[in-house]
Amino acid sequence: MSRIAYVNGAYVPMSEACVHIDDRGYQFADGVYEGVSVRHGKLIDLEPHLDRLWRSLGELQMMAPMDRGPMRLVLKEVVRRNRIKDGFLYLQITRGVAPRDHPFPAQTPWPAMVVTAKRLNFDAVMDRAMTQGVAGSSQPDIRWGRCDVKSTSLLPNILAKQAAREAGAFEAVMVDRDGYVTEGSSTNIWMVTKDGTLVTRSTDDNILPGITRASVMKVARDLQMKVEERAFTLEEAKGAAEMFLTSSTSCAMPIVSLDGQKIGDGTPGPVAKRLVEAYKAFMDA
Amino acid sequence: MSRIAYVNGAYVPMSEACVHIDDRGYQFADGVYEGVSVRHGKLIDLEPHLDRLWRSLGELQMMAPMDRGPMRLVLKEVVRRNRIKDGFLYLQITRGVAPRDHPFPAQTPWPAMVVTAKRLNFDAVMDRAMTQGVAGSSQPDIRWGRCDVKSTSLLPNILAKQAAREAGAFEAVMVDRDGYVTEGSSTNIWMVTKDGTLVTRSTDDNILPGITRASVMKVARDLQMKVEERAFTLEEAKGAAEMFLTSSTSCAMPIVSLDGQKIGDGTPGPVAKRLVEAYKAFMDA
Repeated sequence: MSRIAYVNGAYVPMSEACVHIDDRGYQFADGVYEGVSVRHGKLIDLEPHLDRLWRSLGELQMMAPMDRGPMRLVLKEVVRRNRIKDGFLYLQITRGVAPRDHPFPAQTPWPAMVVTAKRLNFDAVMDRAMTQGVAGSSQPDIRWGRCDVKSTSLLPNILAKQAAREAGAFEAVMVDRDGYVTEGSSTNIWMVTKDGTLVTRSTDDNILPGITRASVMKVARDLQMKVEERAFTLEEAKGAAEMFLTSSTSCAMPIVSLDGQKIGDGTPGPVAKRLVEAYKAFMDA
Repeated sequence: MSRIAYVNGAYVPMSEACVHIDDRGYQFADGVYEGVSVRHGKLIDLEPHLDRLWRSLGELQMMAPMDRGPMRLVLKEVVRRNRIKDGFLYLQITRGVAPRDHPFPAQTPWPAMVVTAKRLNFDAVMDRAMTQGVAGSSQPDIRWGRCDVKSTSLLPNILAKQAAREAGAFEAVMVDRDGYVTEGSSTNIWMVTKDGTLVTRSTDDNILPGITRASVMKVARDLQMKVEERAFTLEEAKGAAEMFLTSSTSCAMPIVSLDGQKIGDGTPGPVAKRLVEAYKAFMDA
C-alpha cells in the first residue's frame, strides 16, 4: 500500500505529493513544523505540540491554515489512512505560494500545509536505549539567534548531524562559542551529575523547547529526581555520571560516549534506564 | 503567455511547476541558489555566478545536477522561452528527494534543479538610483555562521527584510553583535567616506561574496576610486558622505537615509551616481 500524504486540502499518494516551486518554504525556508510520536495509534503529547506550533506561527507572523479542531482531525486521518500503530507524524506549514520576493507578500497567501506519517518501531528504540545507547560528537553551534522557533531553516542542523555521523556518532552535541552545550541537532541534551541531579539547558537560552524534554522532565520529577535547568560545559558533560538525549523519535536515549570518550562506564546508566521505562509507561498509558 | 519554469529536466508552465514534498529543500532548506540579471537578453556575470554556485555546492557536499555547459544552455533556454530582454533569472538546486531524515541520504539522490525568469525593468531601477535612492533600516544580524554559502536557509534574511519594510525602509542594514555592519538582507552594503574612499565589508567576515559587489568594485577601481574592504560601524555609516547597496536586482542603489536619518544631504550622492552610470555601461557593454 502506498503511503498517503495530506497536501493543501487533499489526501494524495506520496508519489504525487507536490508543492509549487514558489512555495516560500522551498525558496526561503519560510515555514515551521512539528513531529509527533504515534504509539498504539495515539498521538503523544499532541496538545503541547499544537501549542508550540501556534507559538512558532505567531513568532513568524504566519496564519494557521485551519483551526486546531480541524487540524487534529487531519492529523488523525493521516495516521488512519497510513494504518500507523507505532510511528512518526510530520506536519509542516509554510507561508504559502507567492512570487519570489524576500518580504512577506503584500497579499497574504493561504498557508501551505503538508502532513505525512511513517512507521517507527518504538519497541526497538526503547530496546536500544536500555541495552546500547548511542554515541555523541561535539560540534560547534553556529545556528541563528532564534532557535526557539521550530522553523524549517534547518541547514545548520543537518550539517551538524552529518558531521556527527561522519565522526561515527548518532547525534551532534552542539556547543556554543562559550563552551556550553546548547542542544542536539534534532534533540535536547541532558547530563546526570555524580550526585544524581539531571541537568539540561534552560529553554530561555536560544534552544528549542522540546516536547519530549518537557515530558521527560515531568516523568523525572514524578520519580522524585532532582532536575536543574542550566548551562553546562562540554567538559562537565564528559565528566558526568550519565548523559542522554530526548526527542520524539528517540524518547530518552542514553549517550554512552562523547567524542570517543566513555560517559560513565560506557553503557546506559541507571538513571537513564529508569527514565526510559517511565517514559515508555507514559506513552503506553 | 504563461511563464515557463525549468523543473528537474522539463520546461513546464509556472502553474504546473511543482517539486516533491520530500525534496530536502522544502523540509530542511538543504539547497543553494543564484540570481542572475538579464540585460538586453544577456546573462550578466554568468560565469562568476556559476563559480559561486559550484563553491556553494562544494561547501554543502552537494552534487551539481549537470555540468556547466548544459547548465548554461538551460539558463539561456529559460530566458528565451520567457522572452526576457531585461529581467531576473533564478536558479535553485537542492540535495534532492529522499525520505525525511536529517543526515545526508545514504543513497545520494539526484539533485533537484529549478530555474525561473521574470521581467525586471533595469531602466527604472537605474532611474530610481539616480534620482531617489532608498531608505535603510538597521537590524540585528542574527544569522548563522556560514553566510558565505548562498543557501536557501533564508528565514533570518526575510525576517530582517520584513522588519525593515515595516520600519518604512527598502532594505535592512544588518549589524553584528559588535556594532559593525555586515551586509543587507539580500544585498551588500557600502559607504563612501568624506575623503571619497569606498568601504565595504570584507568577504572574509561571514558575508556573502556578492557578484554585483565584485563588479561594482572593479568598475570603481577602473574609475580610479579608492576601495577598502573592512568592517565599519553603524555610527560610522550614519556619518558617511554617502551609502549605497549592491545586488543583482538593485545594481548600485544609493541609501539616502538610515533609521530615518539623512545620509549626506539625503539624496543620491555624486560617487554613487558615477557608479550607477558606470555599472549601467558595464551591463550594456
